[in-house]
Amino acid sequence: MSDPGSDTAPDTGLDPAVAGRLKRNADGLVAAIVQQHDTHEVLMLGWMDDEALHRTLSTGRGTYWSRSRQEYWVKGETSGHTQRVVEVRLDCDGDTVLVKVDQTGPACHTGADTCFDADVLLANSRDD
Amino acid sequence: MSDPGSDTAPDTGLDPAVAGRLKRNADGLVAAIVQQHDTHEVLMLGWMDDEALHRTLSTGRGTYWSRSRQEYWVKGETSGHTQRVVEVRLDCDGDTVLVKVDQTGPACHTGADTCFDADVLLANSRDD
Repeated sequence: MSDPGSDTAPDTGLDPAVAGRLKRNADGLVAAIVQQHDTHEVLMLGWMDDEALHRTLSTGRGTYWSRSRQEYWVKGETSGHTQRVVEVRLDCDGDTVLVKVDQTGPACHTGADTCFDADVLLANSRDD
Repeated sequence: MSDPGSDTAPDTGLDPAVAGRLKRNADGLVAAIVQQHDTHEVLMLGWMDDEALHRTLSTGRGTYWSRSRQEYWVKGETSGHTQRVVEVRLDCDGDTVLVKVDQTGPACHTGADTCFDADVLLANSRDD
């Protein structure tokens, strides 16, 4: 946990060429921005270690690492609000993936369509 | 750095009601997903502490905390590729903001339109 980021790829099924491009944080995770593929709405932010990314890529189901529960979770496994993965991209720094999905039902555990629906901090009217 | 997240709002100009809803990581930061307001393209992921969020909200210019340089940076201050902030939303967990901007020029320091342009890990053809 005190390690300043892990450069060593853990032994998972993830393609070593991909694993070698990841810049993990001190907990071995990359951020995962999840976006609805057709409406382009940003749905949520999740976290993935190598294994979660491997499972996401190989199963086509959005799979994350829960920092609070310290376990893998497949989105929708209990709620039924599954994510079919359409596209995954890695950013220029290697520390964030953009996961484009087809979301079934609400993406947020609160029942909202997205995790960003409820709390608007700023809305500029001069949207020219 | 070893603190498991800071619940105490630092003394900045950020509205205390907003600061009180933030769930900062061990470094005192929240993630900032930056999205082009009209095309809905995800441009980049940045990080903000309370002061960076305050500056973003009060100046309308995308302002972040550089984890590598340990300093604030206003997007476009050197490149001219500025971000006019249109909308800011906080997520259900309080640890991520969605910043909708009007981006001038490329958003990525590589010159690409977005930080997610170059590295496609998965592209499912059955996009039904």
